[in-house]
Amino acid sequence: MPASPDLLAALTDRLGAAHVLTAPDETEPYLVETRGLHRGRALAVARPADTAEVAAVVALCAEAGVPVVAQGGNTGLVSGGVPQGGLVLSLARLDRVRAIDATNATITVEAGVPLAEVQAAADRAGMLFPLSLASEGSCRIGGNLATNAGGTAVLAYGNARDLVLGLEVVLADGRVWNGLKALRKDNAGYDLKHLFVGSEGTLGIITAAVLKLFPKPASRGVGFVGLADPTAALALFERLRDRAGHDLTAFEVIPPFGLEIVLRHTPGATAPLSGPHGTYALVEFSSTRVDAPAGEALAAALQEALEAGLVEDAALGASEAQNQALWALRENLSEVQRREGGSIKHDVSVPLSRLPEFLATATRACEAAMPGLRVCAFGHFGDGNIHFNLSQPVGMDRAAFLGEWSRFNRIVHDVVHALGGSIAAEHGIGLIKRDELVRYADPVALDLMRRLKTALDPHGLLNPGKVVVPEGDAGPPPLPSG
Amino acid sequence: MPASPDLLAALTDRLGAAHVLTAPDETEPYLVETRGLHRGRALAVARPADTAEVAAVVALCAEAGVPVVAQGGNTGLVSGGVPQGGLVLSLARLDRVRAIDATNATITVEAGVPLAEVQAAADRAGMLFPLSLASEGSCRIGGNLATNAGGTAVLAYGNARDLVLGLEVVLADGRVWNGLKALRKDNAGYDLKHLFVGSEGTLGIITAAVLKLFPKPASRGVGFVGLADPTAALALFERLRDRAGHDLTAFEVIPPFGLEIVLRHTPGATAPLSGPHGTYALVEFSSTRVDAPAGEALAAALQEALEAGLVEDAALGASEAQNQALWALRENLSEVQRREGGSIKHDVSVPLSRLPEFLATATRACEAAMPGLRVCAFGHFGDGNIHFNLSQPVGMDRAAFLGEWSRFNRIVHDVVHALGGSIAAEHGIGLIKRDELVRYADPVALDLMRRLKTALDPHGLLNPGKVVVPEGDAGPPPLPSG
Repeated sequence: MPASPDLLAALTDRLGAAHVLTAPDETEPYLVETRGLHRGRALAVARPADTAEVAAVVALCAEAGVPVVAQGGNTGLVSGGVPQGGLVLSLARLDRVRAIDATNATITVEAGVPLAEVQAAADRAGMLFPLSLASEGSCRIGGNLATNAGGTAVLAYGNARDLVLGLEVVLADGRVWNGLKALRKDNAGYDLKHLFVGSEGTLGIITAAVLKLFPKPASRGVGFVGLADPTAALALFERLRDRAGHDLTAFEVIPPFGLEIVLRHTPGATAPLSGPHGTYALVEFSSTRVDAPAGEALAAALQEALEAGLVEDAALGASEAQNQALWALRENLSEVQRREGGSIKHDVSVPLSRLPEFLATATRACEAAMPGLRVCAFGHFGDGNIHFNLSQPVGMDRAAFLGEWSRFNRIVHDVVHALGGSIAAEHGIGLIKRDELVRYADPVALDLMRRLKTALDPHGLLNPGKVVVPEGDAGPPPLPSG
Repeated sequence: MPASPDLLAALTDRLGAAHVLTAPDETEPYLVETRGLHRGRALAVARPADTAEVAAVVALCAEAGVPVVAQGGNTGLVSGGVPQGGLVLSLARLDRVRAIDATNATITVEAGVPLAEVQAAADRAGMLFPLSLASEGSCRIGGNLATNAGGTAVLAYGNARDLVLGLEVVLADGRVWNGLKALRKDNAGYDLKHLFVGSEGTLGIITAAVLKLFPKPASRGVGFVGLADPTAALALFERLRDRAGHDLTAFEVIPPFGLEIVLRHTPGATAPLSGPHGTYALVEFSSTRVDAPAGEALAAALQEALEAGLVEDAALGASEAQNQALWALRENLSEVQRREGGSIKHDVSVPLSRLPEFLATATRACEAAMPGLRVCAFGHFGDGNIHFNLSQPVGMDRAAFLGEWSRFNRIVHDVVHALGGSIAAEHGIGLIKRDELVRYADPVALDLMRRLKTALDPHGLLNPGKVVVPEGDAGPPPLPSG
């Protein structure tokens, strides 16, 4: 699609020349996804300052028939924010915390506030905003909501979706839906907010939200546990959940290969346990009650599990610094995979009871498909969410390995599908899983999704080609990895 | 609409004559809402046995252009299940628990399972299904989900919506969407389940669901607290929430008039506190951790609040029997209002920080509008959800009082609206608040709702006249109360 001088002039008129970017060096960061896998193209990047300007930009684009791709921090992992033409609309300048109500335990923020800033604002008010994920310093809350982000606090607090009470959304025609309710109970008609959360900018553009806050925990305990295998990890999880309930705030799993590469590539990192184990779990208890310290409860629960033979070994953080060091082993895992060459990624989930079977079956299938391939299956075990990543065989050409992306998707997603799982647990569909969704989704579900898309964005101008595309119209193909 | 012999014959052919009711004495219970306020009319009542039969019934009705009104236990409080013609489709025979997976903490149930049966099945599996409300013995889980029911456990566990992982739904054209996923994280396209939850049978008919289970609490403590006023109650709530977090599992408020009529009409009930107080709170802590007993923590927190002058007096249940007796004071409140004559009801919510202002303003306005009227504002204070009910003046004619329903709606809902609240907190819109929704909803929200209705039920056959009606087409007026 050629640039439209009229549209650019109108945008410049409305936003000021400084906020309509067309120079290649200025637009570059908005065109490439965070891992450099995909590059898009756009007429321009618009940077409106507030909701009224967002609405004006969308209305101008609607009039011109030009697609709009909303972008927050551009940290997504499914190329959902990579434009394939049209205008990039950056929400970055909508960065105000509009209100905090500690009594109501709510915060009202604009879409462009970085997640870490939402956390910090809550903290200053004496409260907790629990959403937490690797990119929290650079991702923005609007993107977190548009993708229904997950992260490390889902076990106790839910996904991003579960933290939303109200939304403000600019619709495809430029109208503004003001749904900024701050209510714990509201059954006044259909729930519209859940339609936009997780729709990846394809049904509307979230400009602000009312989010839930929580009391800050008074204590936490962190343990690093060595176990025989995922079956033992699942048994430990079930035992801890049934004993600690909501106080079990994290249960992450790290495979031996994952621990190995974290220790290899992280300066100063040391192995928390002496011997090797079949798998590892990072476990956290936290408690709001000062009379019920989390660390002691975790120590007692792990001791009991040791005595029951469920756990092979365990190390407990004896200080907050040690707790953070244990967490760092898990958190650095995403980053250090890059150091081992190409990585083919799957963000999947299965019912918790199927986790051991999933891990065994998918690992076996992938290893059989490419000798030397190194499975790095880690993540949010307590949510049934595994980042089933594949590091290339040592010495293989990176590009050649990444060229196998689709073949391994098929292998892994077939296993996931057979176990009643999801091929998109917390990262969304975006561009790279769009055709996988068509393959695996219930046809009735797909039809419903298309009807919703048509009802809310009849001209297909909001982030076209992502998530759901019209039947028989695949749009531009997902860009090849490389 | 006259009965269609063809349709009835086809239904009888498919379901058997025993499950297509047309005799007045058989259809009667399906035509009248639970308080006897409204009576509807229907061609017949169909009682399919399973999802395939539900789909067949809906397909036959779609073909014949006949509306379908889904009904669970017919315990709703907004006449959402009262038919205004068409066919009543009872889900009562879909009453199987399809699966329980204690490891995954999920239960799969059909729509017609009574709520109490879902609770009992969870309990037998050693788990908790927390949804709890007054009609739990007779309401059915499909209705709870279709109305996004609230109840007394929302504070810690959320509304019915928050307890759903997956749904099976029969669509307006008789197709079945199988969305029975049992996953904690699933971002594979738009979230369809949230569209149907709370849509009161107007977008699809829920036939089965996968629900979350939770560990059973190991202990609970229940306290009955006397406070100066709602401002003190709010301060106490905030203090307990910040100290107990998720362990604060209930915070219900009862006004002096409410306590008075519960004691008057409940045989054997005794006042838990000696002196009179400005307002009362029923507070519950519970804990999953055996090392952190809830009763002791509640006692300590209330003692502290007493010493801080926040609380005037408090009684603690010293046994589970006493806990239940304290809870009964709150639970009997709905029932005993009938004994005081006509009651005009408002199920509303506001942000917690606005609760004292709401209660003061709405009470003042109602008392000014009718001398002698007795405000009975009670309920789920910790959720910002008040049942702002009005008992008739002593000696007034009941029907004359109920004739003022709309006038008092206007007074109360205006106050709610001005405070950013909801006119339908947990009971839904149904028939009786349909026109109120049009009055108070953001016009853009209303337009979105209508678009969703058109997208999913283009011929308007699912529970027509409820929740959202086409613009300019009010449908039959909400039946007058009486």
